[in-house]
Amino acid sequence: MSSTNRLKELRDEIDPINLQILELLNKRAEIALEIGKVQQEKGTQIYDPQREAEMLTALQYANGGPFSNETISKLFNEIFRATLNLEEQDARQAILVQRKQPDQHTIIEFSNGLRLGNDTFEVIAGPCAVESYEQMDQVAAVLAQRGVKMIRGMGYKPRTSPYDFQGMGEEGLKIARQVANKHDMMVISEVLDMSLIPMMDEYVDAFWVGARNMQNSFLLRALGKQKKPVLLKRSFGATLKEFIYAAEYIMASGNEQVILMERGIRAFSQWTRNTLDISAVPLLKKETHLPVFVDISHSAGRRDIANPLGRVARVSGADGLMVEVHPHPDVAMSDAKQQLDLDEFNSLMDDVESISMRQKQSV
Amino acid sequence: MSSTNRLKELRDEIDPINLQILELLNKRAEIALEIGKVQQEKGTQIYDPQREAEMLTALQYANGGPFSNETISKLFNEIFRATLNLEEQDARQAILVQRKQPDQHTIIEFSNGLRLGNDTFEVIAGPCAVESYEQMDQVAAVLAQRGVKMIRGMGYKPRTSPYDFQGMGEEGLKIARQVANKHDMMVISEVLDMSLIPMMDEYVDAFWVGARNMQNSFLLRALGKQKKPVLLKRSFGATLKEFIYAAEYIMASGNEQVILMERGIRAFSQWTRNTLDISAVPLLKKETHLPVFVDISHSAGRRDIANPLGRVARVSGADGLMVEVHPHPDVAMSDAKQQLDLDEFNSLMDDVESISMRQKQSV
Amino acid sequence: MSSTNRLKELRDEIDPINLQILELLNKRAEIALEIGKVQQEKGTQIYDPQREAEMLTALQYANGGPFSNETISKLFNEIFRATLNLEEQDARQAILVQRKQPDQHTIIEFSNGLRLGNDTFEVIAGPCAVESYEQMDQVAAVLAQRGVKMIRGMGYKPRTSPYDFQGMGEEGLKIARQVANKHDMMVISEVLDMSLIPMMDEYVDAFWVGARNMQNSFLLRALGKQKKPVLLKRSFGATLKEFIYAAEYIMASGNEQVILMERGIRAFSQWTRNTLDISAVPLLKKETHLPVFVDISHSAGRRDIANPLGRVARVSGADGLMVEVHPHPDVAMSDAKQQLDLDEFNSLMDDVESISMRQKQSV
Amino acid sequence: MSSTNRLKELRDEIDPINLQILELLNKRAEIALEIGKVQQEKGTQIYDPQREAEMLTALQYANGGPFSNETISKLFNEIFRATLNLEEQDARQAILVQRKQPDQHTIIEFSNGLRLGNDTFEVIAGPCAVESYEQMDQVAAVLAQRGVKMIRGMGYKPRTSPYDFQGMGEEGLKIARQVANKHDMMVISEVLDMSLIPMMDEYVDAFWVGARNMQNSFLLRALGKQKKPVLLKRSFGATLKEFIYAAEYIMASGNEQVILMERGIRAFSQWTRNTLDISAVPLLKKETHLPVFVDISHSAGRRDIANPLGRVARVSGADGLMVEVHPHPDVAMSDAKQQLDLDEFNSLMDDVESISMRQKQSV
Repeated sequence: MSSTNRLKELRDEIDPINLQILELLNKRAEIALEIGKVQQEKGTQIYDPQREAEMLTALQYANGGPFSNETISKLFNEIFRATLNLEEQDARQAILVQRKQPDQHTIIEFSNGLRLGNDTFEVIAGPCAVESYEQMDQVAAVLAQRGVKMIRGMGYKPRTSPYDFQGMGEEGLKIARQVANKHDMMVISEVLDMSLIPMMDEYVDAFWVGARNMQNSFLLRALGKQKKPVLLKRSFGATLKEFIYAAEYIMASGNEQVILMERGIRAFSQWTRNTLDISAVPLLKKETHLPVFVDISHSAGRRDIANPLGRVARVSGADGLMVEVHPHPDVAMSDAKQQLDLDEFNSLMDDVESISMRQKQSV
Repeated sequence: MSSTNRLKELRDEIDPINLQILELLNKRAEIALEIGKVQQEKGTQIYDPQREAEMLTALQYANGGPFSNETISKLFNEIFRATLNLEEQDARQAILVQRKQPDQHTIIEFSNGLRLGNDTFEVIAGPCAVESYEQMDQVAAVLAQRGVKMIRGMGYKPRTSPYDFQGMGEEGLKIARQVANKHDMMVISEVLDMSLIPMMDEYVDAFWVGARNMQNSFLLRALGKQKKPVLLKRSFGATLKEFIYAAEYIMASGNEQVILMERGIRAFSQWTRNTLDISAVPLLKKETHLPVFVDISHSAGRRDIANPLGRVARVSGADGLMVEVHPHPDVAMSDAKQQLDLDEFNSLMDDVESISMRQKQSV
Repeated sequence: MSSTNRLKELRDEIDPINLQILELLNKRAEIALEIGKVQQEKGTQIYDPQREAEMLTALQYANGGPFSNETISKLFNEIFRATLNLEEQDARQAILVQRKQPDQHTIIEFSNGLRLGNDTFEVIAGPCAVESYEQMDQVAAVLAQRGVKMIRGMGYKPRTSPYDFQGMGEEGLKIARQVANKHDMMVISEVLDMSLIPMMDEYVDAFWVGARNMQNSFLLRALGKQKKPVLLKRSFGATLKEFIYAAEYIMASGNEQVILMERGIRAFSQWTRNTLDISAVPLLKKETHLPVFVDISHSAGRRDIANPLGRVARVSGADGLMVEVHPHPDVAMSDAKQQLDLDEFNSLMDDVESISMRQKQSV
Repeated sequence: MSSTNRLKELRDEIDPINLQILELLNKRAEIALEIGKVQQEKGTQIYDPQREAEMLTALQYANGGPFSNETISKLFNEIFRATLNLEEQDARQAILVQRKQPDQHTIIEFSNGLRLGNDTFEVIAGPCAVESYEQMDQVAAVLAQRGVKMIRGMGYKPRTSPYDFQGMGEEGLKIARQVANKHDMMVISEVLDMSLIPMMDEYVDAFWVGARNMQNSFLLRALGKQKKPVLLKRSFGATLKEFIYAAEYIMASGNEQVILMERGIRAFSQWTRNTLDISAVPLLKKETHLPVFVDISHSAGRRDIANPLGRVARVSGADGLMVEVHPHPDVAMSDAKQQLDLDEFNSLMDDVESISMRQKQSV
């Protein structure tokens, strides 16, 4: 018999085996789903590593090859994982942040008409930290002219060194509130610890969690119990999976108004402070139903490429960008190199607004 | 004239200029130190970016080349930074964590005789998380036999997903305390939020701050007000400078008993969970006076190379290592792949103890 | 005297010292430029570390503080570096790849009218590797319809494993040439070793150097002696400085037609094959006068985000993008996950072409 | 029925299904092995993505859930991969570099008695680049005193910039040969391009491939046809898998004398030039039968931590280390910061020799 015929013959033997395996896998999954239900009723954890270990031992004992015990363990581990996923999915229909249908979108609305996640591209801007009323007011006036509806400004600033400027505290938030009211804007500011939430709640319209706190589960859970939206920044060392699960901490605690922000990861770049991971935007939009923003200031750490990064954010599928703006960046108390001055901000807005796209982009 | 002679002649012109610049730099520094003193009296910040900006403008105006204005700005910026460093150093004689003399060593003592930072090499071991009294007791018995004087065990476990096992909480810490008392050991456990400190203080002898919280300044400052030692883990995304400044937050708040722990950084490795940055150990020993430990479990995320990593930690200049040990790693509720079983732990100890070095290694 | 007056007085002492230092720095630089000229005449290297070491020793000997010897060394090192930069700049008016005036742009022209670097946005597309005449022809027909004027296709494919498909070799290049001629397109293909240049020269219109060979100086110099354009891909481990200097190897050997391509760096991403470093585009455009392209296939390693990455490339300031297209990606002999099928390619082109910008973007 | 009984009942249903799946998997594997043999006879590739795609389509068509088509595809993909591994393993009994039995060790012998991979710890030392006869002779005399049997020294130096010192070329290799002969040492030098092999072969006893060339397949294959040993440095951007496969290129071409060298990876470190990935050593020893060395100079880029890194290399399981030594590092033409002077080299050797271990370490 020719080798081609022999090959065909052998392949014809494989096909029914595939189908038999398929059938058994699904039968196994059905029983596992029932087990999951019983466990839920009993209140025990679905994941049972001891039981898995026993099953593997039995399989290795029974294994006659040609697959090695190691390979068999690996394959069954995959089956266990898939089954566990199915059970967990069944239990809570997958995690809350995950997009369930292609057109599921969380839209977050504010009292001044700002809507995030709504097919428009919004800009959140303002100085790194609140330094004075004049500074905030000067910036806010320009922002308002350009249609920006949310101003940023830290009262509490996370710093590498305990000797660096740590922010004006509550005084700064008061200023931000006053200035925002004057210009009909919303205020967003970083919350560094859950103990600050009640006080901050009096001044801000939305909280943001900084990169250094992305996995501070106590803070995330506490914000999950708030009524105001939370913007969560990706840690510069976090994978997208870790980022998504951090958002899940907030949602699982009850707050569905979560905004994700990509702000650069730590790689080996020397000409930028961080490396903007722009691919994260379409991936986050694909995997979750949440608004996704891009911080073009921290990702680059230099203002001379703000315009191209702003344009890039605009077309990436993001729902908006955040940018730091200061009346006199050279004398700013922090992050001088990355804050735009007022002219540079206007140039950025010109650039971003000059882009037009066919309304619905794929992905 | 020959080119060699011409070269000599030109160089002879450079030398006195160098000395003149030197003299002016020091004269400038002396005045700056006085300025610093006046500012301290006034209670104003030493760093004054506006003044710097004005000086740069004046210099650029006066600059006739051949150096470009950009180069002049850069050089004077270096001079400003050096001057500022001098002022700040003068103000607090450099940061607290920094080693001042070659033989300055912080030694941390515990009530059961354990001393960290003391030219001995200590092992901190125990399961990832407390799961039951039996589990802790079984491990502690083996640890005690090998001379381990501090047991680890988390009551509160930071997890990527909110649906993963988050620890037994206070109940777990109670168990850890009971077991430690039985075997005359100290307890160390992770503190996830400053609100937990008072409760944990009843059960533990030392706190540790996890990698995810390395830059949680509120937690660091709160621990700075405690009397018990704090072991600070390096974030997997942190530079050594950021790590050292995080320790400074604790010391600057009053607690001098800080232990640094290298536990692997996030690079592109695929065969290990993280990348153990062993060079960090001699660098941290050089720059600070604090005890330095190596976590050989999280850095690798796999137990089959625990022995070589333990040996490596032993000779790196570190003051000890931390390792996860579990009676039945395969059924552990977390980090199953990286916890050693009891036999593996004994093998690790055999390996580490088999190494002898001439007593005083350079660096 | 009030502390405010005292502060003013002290500051008034600083200002003339600044100006004296400025004058001395420039005087020093002038002499150094003369030294540089003498050295060039003698044919000796400008950089003379021994001389620098001697100067530092003399300065440290003369230093009376308050600056420490370490600080003085650091400051003079900056002065040495600035001076050396000035000398090197003078010697060759900075490196060849560097943009000298804001409007300096290298434009590369091909015989079919394709022009790269010319304010238009061009697409280079084609399969990863040439597999058959049919495959190439099928792709080329679609590309030609969309106005693509350059087809890619590897004859020699760099693979991680020696046992993977290594390409059809010269046979593949012949096919690419035939198909390109049929559709009035240019051919670009990867050159893996300088020994292949003469043969490849018969079939291709432009060479590309792959990421793995970015620092293969023998290959770069050999291509520097060719008349055809060279597209240089950034190594996934290379900084932008290293990338620019690799291009300089080609230009310094005589070939001015160099195209730079960003194709993703290796970071810790798990959901993409590499991390597209989009900030590299504006930085490379700023620092060099060369055309800059973005490879949207290798940077992501997945085709489901090709459209947003294509849009991002379009507005980033890049002169074009490269994308892999295959009639049947699922059965491609390599990189199946990242090659677009013909419909997906059309969708990408629709997306990219739907973007319009005001013609001149800043940066 | 109680929920505990119900759970037991359901689990009893799972067990026989597991065994049925096991049996089918192995039956499937046996047929696949036969298919592999037929394909080898026919000379066709074992990997057939089109066939896989067809099988997946059939399975998805037949799938009735509860597993989703996506999960089924994933599970069968794992089965395909495991089967392919089995076939490939069968075809060439896994790759050549892979350790087959625990005690398989490649030992490389040289004419002066040097043996690498032989349970001893060897040091390869010498200057970065050959600069003069005196420089080489001065270093070699000290090395010889300390029992070093192989001297390094580059004739051709890979540099980031084309304007940096590129080495003395053949002249440098002649000097290295002369000096090595005088001191009964072997010479190892970097080969930058395969065109240099015949000339270099006259002077050197072993070739090394630099990090920048680790995936230069033409060079690797050409060295695979040589009779002299090849030391292969890991690229700073390469995973261990890529590194091992690069070695496989050499072995698959016929040269079995390959030495692997870890020399630091590129991460985000700022206080070291690269990040020494010490975990790579036990992993490479585990996965391959080749000698493994550690380059303590390039990994750190600073000489002040050479001693601890040398100690670390000593106990890591490595077969030796490489270190750069120069009579006057401050005036070296390259890599001044990382070359040890002669006293520092003696101190390093003292440190490394002072360590004693029980002879057989696990792993």
